Amino acid sequence: MGLEGNLIVGQSGGPTAVINASLAGVIEEAKKHSEIKELYGAVNGVEGLLKEEIADLRAESDEDISLLRNTPASALLTCRRKLTEDDYDRLLAIFRAHNIRYFLYIGGNDSADTTHKVGLLAKESGYEMRVMGVPKTVDNDLAYMDHTPGFGSVARFNALAMRDAGLDSLAMATSTPIKIIETMGRNAGWITASTALAREKPGDPPDLIYLPERTFDRDQFLSDVRKVLERGHGCTIAVCEGLRDADGNPVVASKSEIDTDAFGHRQLGGIGDYLAQFLMNSLNLKARADKAGTIQRVCGIAQSSVDVEEAYMAGAAAVRHACEGTSDQMVTLVRVSSNPYKCETGLAPLSAVANAERLVPDEFINEEGNDVTPAFIEYALPLIGGPLPKYARLKLERIPKLLSS
Amino acid sequence: MGLEGNLIVGQSGGPTAVINASLAGVIEEAKKHSEIKELYGAVNGVEGLLKEEIADLRAESDEDISLLRNTPASALLTCRRKLTEDDYDRLLAIFRAHNIRYFLYIGGNDSADTTHKVGLLAKESGYEMRVMGVPKTVDNDLAYMDHTPGFGSVARFNALAMRDAGLDSLAMATSTPIKIIETMGRNAGWITASTALAREKPGDPPDLIYLPERTFDRDQFLSDVRKVLERGHGCTIAVCEGLRDADGNPVVASKSEIDTDAFGHRQLGGIGDYLAQFLMNSLNLKARADKAGTIQRVCGIAQSSVDVEEAYMAGAAAVRHACEGTSDQMVTLVRVSSNPYKCETGLAPLSAVANAERLVPDEFINEEGNDVTPAFIEYALPLIGGPLPKYARLKLERIPKLLSS
Repeated sequence: MGLEGNLIVGQSGGPTAVINASLAGVIEEAKKHSEIKELYGAVNGVEGLLKEEIADLRAESDEDISLLRNTPASALLTCRRKLTEDDYDRLLAIFRAHNIRYFLYIGGNDSADTTHKVGLLAKESGYEMRVMGVPKTVDNDLAYMDHTPGFGSVARFNALAMRDAGLDSLAMATSTPIKIIETMGRNAGWITASTALAREKPGDPPDLIYLPERTFDRDQFLSDVRKVLERGHGCTIAVCEGLRDADGNPVVASKSEIDTDAFGHRQLGGIGDYLAQFLMNSLNLKARADKAGTIQRVCGIAQSSVDVEEAYMAGAAAVRHACEGTSDQMVTLVRVSSNPYKCETGLAPLSAVANAERLVPDEFINEEGNDVTPAFIEYALPLIGGPLPKYARLKLERIPKLLSS
Repeated sequence: MGLEGNLIVGQSGGPTAVINASLAGVIEEAKKHSEIKELYGAVNGVEGLLKEEIADLRAESDEDISLLRNTPASALLTCRRKLTEDDYDRLLAIFRAHNIRYFLYIGGNDSADTTHKVGLLAKESGYEMRVMGVPKTVDNDLAYMDHTPGFGSVARFNALAMRDAGLDSLAMATSTPIKIIETMGRNAGWITASTALAREKPGDPPDLIYLPERTFDRDQFLSDVRKVLERGHGCTIAVCEGLRDADGNPVVASKSEIDTDAFGHRQLGGIGDYLAQFLMNSLNLKARADKAGTIQRVCGIAQSSVDVEEAYMAGAAAVRHACEGTSDQMVTLVRVSSNPYKCETGLAPLSAVANAERLVPDEFINEEGNDVTPAFIEYALPLIGGPLPKYARLKLERIPKLLSS
């Protein structure tokens, strides 16, 4: 039985390269369901919703909706807002006032929590409304799913960036032998691990990969780098901004109050420069760090075609399930087959997703804690949507030397 | 009259996205000239050459040579080496020993200087050898030419990165209103200026652009940012790593000895994080900085098709000119027409190029010193090789509010 009424969709948390593909999936699918009357967008997520900043999505052109698939960042604008009890009450009042019967929120754990609580409150108040979560996070750390929309594209960006910066570093090895690429990642090292997808052959960069799933030890790090440098072609290193020391403290984190978000997360970043300085002081060799920062998560030209497709699919599935009567669930991605790669959508309770975090498992990290395993490559490779562009690999066969050195 | 003998080509200084396209141009053109016998590559530029690290480029496959066009970084490996008098003598001995009659060096000012001096010494010693420079630098600061191979691609990267990061920032404006993109650039602000190519419409990011051609004043900067923030959509800023204060000192530069290269250049970088911290302290608002670092100069997927073509053309022209008897010159790029854009190669003396630096001229910088002018856009737009991918632009028309706020 169709529940007649209006649908509102919002985007939450950090943007990704494909969160708008999920939005396109929601909108285009919603247009197929006659029980869905008005089609609204919450501008700036729940933060805007509290101010009734509601956009009429039926007023957007079909072309713009279609272009959303390949438009990075959050077209509805986003927020990082932890709601108070009063906020929840006001949200419900707004839903009632606008006859909103479907609330779809595209986001990660925190958004799942918000969506679940909204649904709960509606239920307790006897207001019939279906709430669904659409997964989104570059961090790939949502539980109950094989991977998250957003990850494939940030992984593709980092694979490309590491391959190119690795070639740069190799070319410059006689003057600047050490290159560090700093990636995003608070507790989970998925993004950092994805730099390993840069490798075509053993020995290709990155030489070392450090994930927050393992304690970061500076002495061990220095010893690892020394060993790589002995091979004579420089050293290219991927580090996660969230690396922690033996006491569980971030190796580098902002100390400013302003740098703590509404969920108590402290801003990370800067570990690349920090470790480059550490290596320069310790080894008397030049080291440089690149930190693509937000560029990595919203790079349009690095979108993974698989990621775009799955993000769209997740958005559309959320609408279909809601129309069929499902509520309080997040759409998940389920890998049906690895070879050939095949992925379908599933469902998981919002409250379960909200309270779990999926770290990189032991079988994806090598024994030394400074690289990933072949099992990780097998897992992640299909997600980046086809091979990286083919590059020349010169043999550089040397001719005989004629002079004494 | 053909000068019979061997040709050697080398790559120098920082890698770019298209320096290998120039190499492909040299190799493929050289193969057409029967007076050129062996075709050599100097591995790690003059640094490797001094150790007779010479690769046989006729041993490379045609496929690999062709793939060089789209392979970023320096396939022959590179160096930053200032030669001593002894080094020059040894170089000449090596050229004689290997019957090298053509020396082509792909690089910027420093490489032009090296090439010129090698040519001079050969002449003084009565060794017939033709030396040619092929221009290369992401910095776009070589004189006697309209622009340099390498710039179009780094400009495309930064236009794309600014557009995407600008959308990210706009989406996050309620929680992190300030975004800084730090670009490369020591004395010349061309790369930073190229972030303006991200704009499709007036008001699009970047909101502010700071070039090293203007003194950086923190109070003025703060006042500029405050003014932009009043518009209520956050503030996106492009800054050059080489910004200088009123005393002519870099706003941020490494203090380590190890961070000074063979030419006395001190390592820059980190100004983005520094200014983000400054704004957070001054405004009590969150600010984030992205620093793509070397990723920007070698990003394969951001190659400008125009840049690839011109880099190739410059390499091929150097060989043709050398075979025709020209020496001691650098190939230049000459804009023949702006609309439609058309570019040809020309020539300039190596010594002239070596001793000049082309900064962003006054007519490309706005009066306030915090943006570029339309004339800059007209100049730079053709160089990035076609428009940026089209994105959705939602109207986000608000529906009437029903509740009191």
